[in-house]
This record gives sequence, C-alpha cells and structure tokens, in this order.
Amino acid sequence: MSPHGHTDPRWFAGNEPFSDATEMFIRPDHYVFRMLYSRGIPLEALGVPRRDGSVPDDDPRKAWRFLAGNYHLFRGTPSAYWLNYVFRFVFGMEEQLSAETADHYYDTIAAALSRDEFRPRALFDRFNIEVLATTESPIDALEHHRTIRDSGWGGRVITAFRPDPVVDPDFDGFAQNLDALSDVTGLDCRNYDEYLHALRLRREFFRSMGATSTDHGHPTAATADLGSGDARALFDRISGGGASPGDAELFRAHMLVVMAGMSLEDGLVMQIHPGSCRNHNTRVFEEYGRDKGADIPTRTDYVNDLRPLLDRFGNENDLTVIVFTLDESSYSRELAPLAGHYPILKLGPPWWFHDSPEGMLRMRRATHETAGFYNLAGFNDDTRAFLSIPARHDMARRMDCVHLAELVASHRLDEDAAAELIVDLSYKLAKDAYKL
Amino acid sequence: MSPHGHTDPRWFAGNEPFSDATEMFIRPDHYVFRMLYSRGIPLEALGVPRRDGSVPDDDPRKAWRFLAGNYHLFRGTPSAYWLNYVFRFVFGMEEQLSAETADHYYDTIAAALSRDEFRPRALFDRFNIEVLATTESPIDALEHHRTIRDSGWGGRVITAFRPDPVVDPDFDGFAQNLDALSDVTGLDCRNYDEYLHALRLRREFFRSMGATSTDHGHPTAATADLGSGDARALFDRISGGGASPGDAELFRAHMLVVMAGMSLEDGLVMQIHPGSCRNHNTRVFEEYGRDKGADIPTRTDYVNDLRPLLDRFGNENDLTVIVFTLDESSYSRELAPLAGHYPILKLGPPWWFHDSPEGMLRMRRATHETAGFYNLAGFNDDTRAFLSIPARHDMARRMDCVHLAELVASHRLDEDAAAELIVDLSYKLAKDAYKL
Amino acid sequence: MSPHGHTDPRWFAGNEPFSDATEMFIRPDHYVFRMLYSRGIPLEALGVPRRDGSVPDDDPRKAWRFLAGNYHLFRGTPSAYWLNYVFRFVFGMEEQLSAETADHYYDTIAAALSRDEFRPRALFDRFNIEVLATTESPIDALEHHRTIRDSGWGGRVITAFRPDPVVDPDFDGFAQNLDALSDVTGLDCRNYDEYLHALRLRREFFRSMGATSTDHGHPTAATADLGSGDARALFDRISGGGASPGDAELFRAHMLVVMAGMSLEDGLVMQIHPGSCRNHNTRVFEEYGRDKGADIPTRTDYVNDLRPLLDRFGNENDLTVIVFTLDESSYSRELAPLAGHYPILKLGPPWWFHDSPEGMLRMRRATHETAGFYNLAGFNDDTRAFLSIPARHDMARRMDCVHLAELVASHRLDEDAAAELIVDLSYKLAKDAYKL
Repeated sequence: MSPHGHTDPRWFAGNEPFSDATEMFIRPDHYVFRMLYSRGIPLEALGVPRRDGSVPDDDPRKAWRFLAGNYHLFRGTPSAYWLNYVFRFVFGMEEQLSAETADHYYDTIAAALSRDEFRPRALFDRFNIEVLATTESPIDALEHHRTIRDSGWGGRVITAFRPDPVVDPDFDGFAQNLDALSDVTGLDCRNYDEYLHALRLRREFFRSMGATSTDHGHPTAATADLGSGDARALFDRISGGGASPGDAELFRAHMLVVMAGMSLEDGLVMQIHPGSCRNHNTRVFEEYGRDKGADIPTRTDYVNDLRPLLDRFGNENDLTVIVFTLDESSYSRELAPLAGHYPILKLGPPWWFHDSPEGMLRMRRATHETAGFYNLAGFNDDTRAFLSIPARHDMARRMDCVHLAELVASHRLDEDAAAELIVDLSYKLAKDAYKL
Repeated sequence: MSPHGHTDPRWFAGNEPFSDATEMFIRPDHYVFRMLYSRGIPLEALGVPRRDGSVPDDDPRKAWRFLAGNYHLFRGTPSAYWLNYVFRFVFGMEEQLSAETADHYYDTIAAALSRDEFRPRALFDRFNIEVLATTESPIDALEHHRTIRDSGWGGRVITAFRPDPVVDPDFDGFAQNLDALSDVTGLDCRNYDEYLHALRLRREFFRSMGATSTDHGHPTAATADLGSGDARALFDRISGGGASPGDAELFRAHMLVVMAGMSLEDGLVMQIHPGSCRNHNTRVFEEYGRDKGADIPTRTDYVNDLRPLLDRFGNENDLTVIVFTLDESSYSRELAPLAGHYPILKLGPPWWFHDSPEGMLRMRRATHETAGFYNLAGFNDDTRAFLSIPARHDMARRMDCVHLAELVASHRLDEDAAAELIVDLSYKLAKDAYKL
Repeated sequence: MSPHGHTDPRWFAGNEPFSDATEMFIRPDHYVFRMLYSRGIPLEALGVPRRDGSVPDDDPRKAWRFLAGNYHLFRGTPSAYWLNYVFRFVFGMEEQLSAETADHYYDTIAAALSRDEFRPRALFDRFNIEVLATTESPIDALEHHRTIRDSGWGGRVITAFRPDPVVDPDFDGFAQNLDALSDVTGLDCRNYDEYLHALRLRREFFRSMGATSTDHGHPTAATADLGSGDARALFDRISGGGASPGDAELFRAHMLVVMAGMSLEDGLVMQIHPGSCRNHNTRVFEEYGRDKGADIPTRTDYVNDLRPLLDRFGNENDLTVIVFTLDESSYSRELAPLAGHYPILKLGPPWWFHDSPEGMLRMRRATHETAGFYNLAGFNDDTRAFLSIPARHDMARRMDCVHLAELVASHRLDEDAAAELIVDLSYKLAKDAYKL
C-alpha cells in the first residue's frame, strides 16, 4: 500500500528497462548525493545534471565508483539500509558494496536490469504492491496514467493532485504555470473565479484518473480564510504583478483553506507537507536547480498556523487532512494534541529525514499516547526510488513491531491488541486514510 | 500525597454516592471524550453538557456504550492505563471493556457505587491519601472545605488559590469576577490598591482553610515587573475598559510578579502552568464552553519570559516557584538549567498530555542530569478524576523505578541511593515542595 | 585528543602544585557551585570570589564540607560521574564522598597534590594526552604558551583564537579591549581596516603558537555578509559610540562571516558556540561576575541565521566550520540536515549541559541517520577542570559504545564497521576536524 510518493508514471506506462546503477541509485536520490557532496565530492562527478540538463562529466561507472568508495559515509543511515536491502533482496548481492566490489556491483546490476523480470511492471508485481500513487501537477496531462490504464496491465498506479506549481507564487515559473493551466482548461486563469473553477476541473480530472488525494508542500503551515473580495484582490496582485512582500505567503495560506473546501466537496484527502526551507544552498540551486539535497527543515507552528483552516473545517466528519512535519518538537506538543481532538486531522508518518529507524521510533513514542493509534495515517514511503519501496515498508513495519513490542513487554498493551495493531499500522490505516 | 488537582470538594463535603459510570468516567474527562470526538463521535452522544448546561441526548448508558464500543481508540494511551487500573483494582472487573461487556460494566459499576464503601470519603481512606488539594477561585467561599473541616472526618482536603478568574483579563467573566471579589471582601476592586489588598485577604483566607499553594494558568510564561504608577494605569485601563491589545498579556505578566511578592510574604508556594492555547476549537467552545479537550500546547520561552520575576525574586531562599511545561523541548534547554541555578525554582512533574509513561520518562531523562533530583517537586496528579488518583501515582512510581533502574543498571547511580530516591520521588519531594 | 577546552596554560608553564580540593573542584566549576546554590547554599560559603576578587569567607575546608554534605544533590548528574571518576582513579579514594568522609577526602587530596606526580605536567603525561588546546583572547600575549614551548617539556599544549572580547560589542570592556588590541599590534583598531588587519596579525601569531582553530561564543547563530561600506559605517558607530539597538548583534553576525573568510585564507578551523543567554541572574552577575552557572540556553535558528555565511562560503572544500548547540531540538531538524549537505560544516559534540550520558545519546541518535558519522567532529571536553579530562573522554567513549552497540544489536551496523567507528569517534574524527 503506497498511497503517497514520487515515482515516475512513465516507468509503468512504457515498461522500458532501467538503464544502470547510477541512473537508479545516485542521480535521482538526493539523500545519496547530498551526503557525498557534504564530504567534498562534486555533484558533477556523480553525474547529477545541471539546471540546463547537461551532465559535463557523464560517466555512470565512474560516478558509481564514487559511491562505492565512500560507502562508509552512509553507515547508520537509512540510505544504507534501503540500498543494502535492494542490493541483497532485489539483486542478490552477497558482498558489501565497497571500492573493491564497485565494478562487480555495477555489472551485475546492469545485467539484471536487462532482463524482463527487472522491468518496472514485473518489479511492481514482484513487490506485491496493491496501489501505488504518484504525484502530478494540475497542468500535467496524465498521459502516462492514461497509457497504464489503457494497457490492460493489472497494476493499480494512481495519481495525486499537487497544485503547488499553480498555487505557490514563489514556485519556479508560476506565471507560466497559470498560463498552462488556462490552456489545459480553456479558462482565463488570471481571473480568480475562473482560476478556482480551473482547479476544480483539474481535481475532477485527477479523480477520474484514480486520484484519492491532494498534496501541498508549503514553507510553513500557514492557513488563512480570506473573504472573497480580499482573496480576489490578492490574486489580482499576485497574478498581475504588484504583489507586496507577504502576499505570496498569504496566498498560499488562503489557498490551503480553499483546497480544504474543495476536498470537502469532492472527497479528495488533503495532505500538508510544511516546513521545508527549499533550495537553502544558493549556489547549488543556481547551478543544479531544485531537489539537490539542500532543503532544510525549519520550526513549524501548527497551533496558530492551522487555526484558520480548523476554524472553518476542523469539525467536519467528511474531510480528512493528513499533516506531516519536519519539526519533531511538534509531535507531542502540537500535532498529537491536535489530531487527538479535531475530527479532520490525521498524522502522516515520519517524513523525509525522519523516515528512519530512530525517527520512526521517536514519532511513535511521542504521539501514540496523545493521538492514539487510530488518528495515524499509517505508512507511506514518499519516495522517488521505486526499488526502495519494499525496503522502506519493511523498515516501517519493523519499527512498528519494535514499538508495539515495547508496549507489550511493559504491560501497556495486550498481545492480541498488538497483533491487530500491526495489521492496522502496516496496511489498514493507510488504506482507510487514503480511501483506497 | 496529592498536592495539586481539580477534584470537587463537594464530594468530600456531602459524601453522596457517585451516580454512574458515564458521570464518573466520560463527562468530566476531557481526555476521554476528546479522543472519541476526534474519531467522529459527537459530544452530545457522550452526554457532554452544552454551555447552558443542557444535555440534549441525556442517556448515560448509551454514552457508556460509545466508550466501550470504541475502547480500542485508547490503546497505548494513559487514559486506558488509568481506566483499566480503576476497573480492575477499584471495581474488580476481570474482562476488558468492549462492546460486549459494556452493559456488564455499567451495571457492575452502578451497583458498586450504591454501596457505602464507594462513597467519596470511604474511597479517600481506602486510597490512603494523606493530603488532597483542590483548586478554587478567590471568589469561592470555600463552603465545602468548611463543611469538611467541621464534619469531624479525618481526611485532609485542602484548597489552593487559583486567581486566574480575577487576574487574567481574558478570563470568561473577568469584569463580573472583579465585582464578586469586591463583594466578598467589601473592598472596591476597581481600585488597584484595594484590588491588591483584596487578593491579600483572600490568600489569607485560603491559607486559613489549609492552602499551601497558589496556581497560575497563563497562555505564556511572561512576567513583568511594572512600577506602581504604570501598574495602576494599566489596571485602570483593564478594569475600566479602554485596554489596548497587549494589555491583558502585560497585566497577567505583571500579576505573576505581584503574586510572587505576596508568596514571599505569606509563604504560599507558587505554581505556574503556562503555555496552553485554550479553547482552540472555536465552534466547540461556542457550543460547549471551556475544558472540552481543545486546549493545545504551544512553544513557551522560559528564559526571557521568567526573567523579570527572577530578577526580582530569583535569589530568595524563602520562596518556592514550581514551574510546569507543555513544551517538552524546554526541559533540557531551559527548565533544567534554570532550576539547577535559581534557588526559588523547582520543576513540576510532566503535565497534562505528558503525564504518561513516555512523557514521564522523557522528562526524567531530560532534566535529572542538569537539575538533579532535588530541584524536582515530586509527583502530582492534577486530576479531576478522583478514582484515577491511585492509578496515576502508581504509574508515576513505576516510571521513577524504570528511570532509577536504568541509572543503577548502567552504573550511574548506586542501588542504595536509588532506594532513597524512590521514597523522595514518591513522597518526600512533593511533601517538602508544597510544605505539607 | 583534547582539541577544545579552557584549562589554564599557566599550570603547564609553571608546573606548580595545585593547592587544595576546593581550589580544584569547587571554585572554578560552575556546574558544581550552581547546583549547591540552587538548593540555598550561598556562593560566599563556597569560596566563590566576588567580582573584585575578594573572598569574604575564605575557608576552603569549610567550602569542601558543604560539597561533601550535599553530595546527594549531584546524584545522576555528570558532575558526580566526573568527580567520582577523579576521586577513584586519580586519588584512589575508596569511600563515597559524604559529610562523614569530607575531611578524609580533603586531607588525602591535599597530601596527594603536594607530591610531584600530581603536578600538572606529570598528570598531563599520566593522562596520556596527545594534544591539549586552551583558548585565549587576541590580546593575550600567550606568554605561558611560550614558556611551555621553550621549556623543553614534550607535552603538546596549543592555544585557540577566541576573538569575542574584541568582536562582541557587548563583551565586558569591549572598548578597552580594542585599545589593547591596538597596543599589541601597533595598529589603530578604531579604524576598520586596521582592525581587520590586527585580527589577521593576531591569528597569524596564534597559528605560530600552535593554534589550529578559532572559537566564537555568540548569543545567537546570526551571520551577516555586509558590503565593506556598510561594515565600515557599522564599525564606526560601534567603536566610536552612537551604536543603535541591534548594531551589536549585526556586528557580531558580520564578523562571523569575516572570520570565516580569514579561516579560508589561513586554515584555522572555525568553531561556533551559539545560543547561551549569559549572566541571566542579574544579581549574581553584579556581585560575582561572569561564568557563575547562570548562563541559560535559548532557542537557536541555524537555518536562517547561518545562511549568509553558508551563501558565501558553504561550498568551500578548504574550510571547516564546527557548529555546536544548546538547543537539542535543532539536532535532527536543522544541524544534521545542514551538516549532511554543506561541505564546510561538521557537528561538534554535545555541549555544556548536554555533555552527559543522556545528552550524548540523544545527540547521537538524533544526528547519525541524517549527517552520518563522518560529518561529526568527534569529542572534545571543553573543560576548565583539568583533572576531569580522562573522565569526560571515558564517558564519551562509553556512550559511543552504547550507541554503536545498539546499532549492531539491531542489525543496523556490521560489527567490523562499529570497530572502525569507535576508533574514529574516539580519536580520528577530532584529529582530522581540528587538523591535529
């Protein structure tokens, strides 16, 4: 059950073989190349493409050797757990990755990938995935999802509605994205009412392509409930130029409440992923663009920030808002008390850097006493790394087992309740929360 | 030793039997009904009274069945630990509470409650309570405490002085409360000097009724030490209308320093419970009023906020200020260093949502290294749920044992020191801190 | 390997015997006397000197009896672990310190200290210290370091460059310190360019006396990258009078970036120790001065505060900036993600109150998954208490062993990797990070 993630639907549409180990495990994985970068290995040596798509030093085997020769940097990190799991259980490697085994790994993986049982759909089936959600922008035509659907293949790959590109005025290319949204809907998305209508239409289209959820990645958890006059004036400033400082944040905040309202209408589960300071490293951003391992968590204030949204919709039994955090101090102080009261709120699993054994245990221990288990949304892997999906779910289940075993061993939970809970935590809570 | 809590002195004055399981375990317990509410069960179905006192759907057995049928929501929560303890050790239940056993529970509890040994005073004696403190407003006449005292019953039930209703301008009915304070003292409490004098008189009266402590529940830990001219002008704005934004917070802050000064005079131990954003759910507050499980913790800054109070009184050996927190990040960063230096400060036990096994262990592990054990105020249950008192103390003692055992097993503490400490932590520290 | 600390180079220059137990264990140790003070024992009774250097009640044996008679206050604290270690392994004591053994301890320690093998250099050799760094102000002539160097003794005692007295406008005697810097360099340090040149000259001099690092203790982690015109105008206001509120903070912030630039030139490793609210207790500060146990940690925002420095120098492979924190909530949220990306950043060990078993474990568990082990700077003891150095390193190594053992036992780390890591963590990482 993989209800939220960032795999590429093209893989399952085309079902082409993956190319090589570097293409799979280094280039798309910011966890991996940021760590190598932190110890002085340049991004170009790892084959990470520049902003313009060029790869000056395009030698995947050489990049792979950098990872292999520096694999000790990953000791104790979730990246190592995931990679080791994939190496062992997907590719059958028996030695550790190291400078000595680098080429053996590279060649073995290349050979495997050329076989049919390593094509995306075969792996999907082998991984026993019941549902896999990808995440797309409202201006995406979802052609790959259509291809999958039309292909007759039985795998359930659905989309999720991620409107940041047309909702966040600070998003790269926001103005052009509004134009693209106009094009795809035939509406004038510089007009606030038509803009809202366009969003409704796209949500409807996404639902028709299987979407059961939306996702919102904002720098803060701020929400705002503007009257329609204020909202229209704000949108005019933002879409027409002349926005003042603070307008972007206010607009994002307002749009979270708008999106919650639409979710109440159309039933899409809402996810809020706040609190990442994106592209913190200016030089890396200028040369390599987004998602290069330089997104740094910040403090997040859920109590005040979510209040406008909760004032408006917090007591609705027909709305689900799944909240995530990068600020672990909020677990016991804010998120568990909020989720343990408001009917609309559920807590998402530990996210990003905290999707790790210690991070998972901290989250479980800090939330279950106040929110209970049944205000959790279960696990989701949130990954771009398709092959790591079984590894990630395996880790989450082990940590759930550790946590439940602690409770059982200290007589805080009956063993039969734990047996029921492990099924809930591994499967049912996610299925229910995401309406799958 | 229950030096701080919110049980109803009427119970011990009248010694009437408790009515039924819903009246005891659901209606007064915001931990319980907030969790059911979070999973979609309306408050009216649980018999929670509306603001006007009405209970539209007053069927206690039906409410009980809601709890019983959804008891899995409480798995792993302190509510379940407390309830299970009471069910087992007070009422002798041998099956788990569930939809199937709901009526059996309801009837067994009703039958028990009708017997004399389940009347409040009998339970008080059976629970082996040495002292029980309740908490009252300065305008309370303490008639129930007088009745208890005059009754000849040996149980020691004392009051504590909680002046929020006449000190916090944002408190419901603040203006009327000032009038009531005038009435009860025969002074003009719209005049700052008479207002202060009235507070002194009421403190004196509370002391005569056994009080050894005051308690202050403010949204922040802000303190301020205003000169008398500024204070008088501020009070005039607040009591006479015309207060500007920020005045309420400044007045609360100032009054904490005033109260500390009075405590230095009269010896009442001061408790500060800051950092709860009360009544976060606007609709629930409008319909059901205060204390409905919608109070959410916020970040609290003790270092800057307490400084005016500490500048004035921090070095007094004859003043005790017990500080609590809902922001666990402050334990090791702020509270333990402050308590490990200032003579007046002691740390209260984990409060509210953190009065739980994990919360207790986090607090112990985060504070003992910097504050030591002897800057702690021991345990207090802070509960409205009289029957849960033994369960809560039992849990705290177990967690102290877990913590001390960790230290002994890792050779950080001698076994004989641990044996002494468990008595201190369970009994002596509270007795000393609260001057009981 | 003791790459950062505050021992007195005079000890190793003069090699005179230490005087008595109070002089060694109470007077210089703010951990010790603050705890006694928190429970009502006056600083004068402990022989802590007043601001003017006077000790009204100068009776070291009496002070020692206060510690001995209240030694239970330190149960479970790192102070007790360190002291017990020193008592047992340096002085061979077999009984616990207590009121009964106070004089026996005092006399035994006095007798030992009079012997040659307890002189500073003999203990340095016995402790098997490879390098010991002290910390000095830019206006220090480093005469003791020169004496050590000229003495022919083989012990490696080096200095570190701590410019706060001439960089922090709020530092006691800042203006006089600028004059002293002018005197020692023959430059006019009220002129910004000459001031910068003077700092360069002193850094060069410190390097010639063995320094490999600088250290910066600011109230926040703020950095700023001012243009030279703005910087010059700011410095003129600050050095000439007429500084506006906020200027001091801005100047400190700017100087961190300046210092980073100089470190890139001359290779000195930069340490940033931010977030202590110094001298929180106004009365104690007025009577006794700095470093009296009244420094309280505050929240620190590394993500925004460090950004100007990181924008300028974050991607340099030839610069090392070691960051410390007193705000444990920043470990997993900010520091580990920053160190896991930026080439210049390494994480210092748990600092001050967090240099304790629980503090160390929290830090290790909260950082290793995101930063890995190789973005850590190993351990440093940061102590004024020379005799505690082996105890502190012993504790850190034990906690590293606990942590690695957890990872091995839960199959998150191979045993051979753990065996390599314990050597790295105990020795190599510090040696590399500090270029020793």
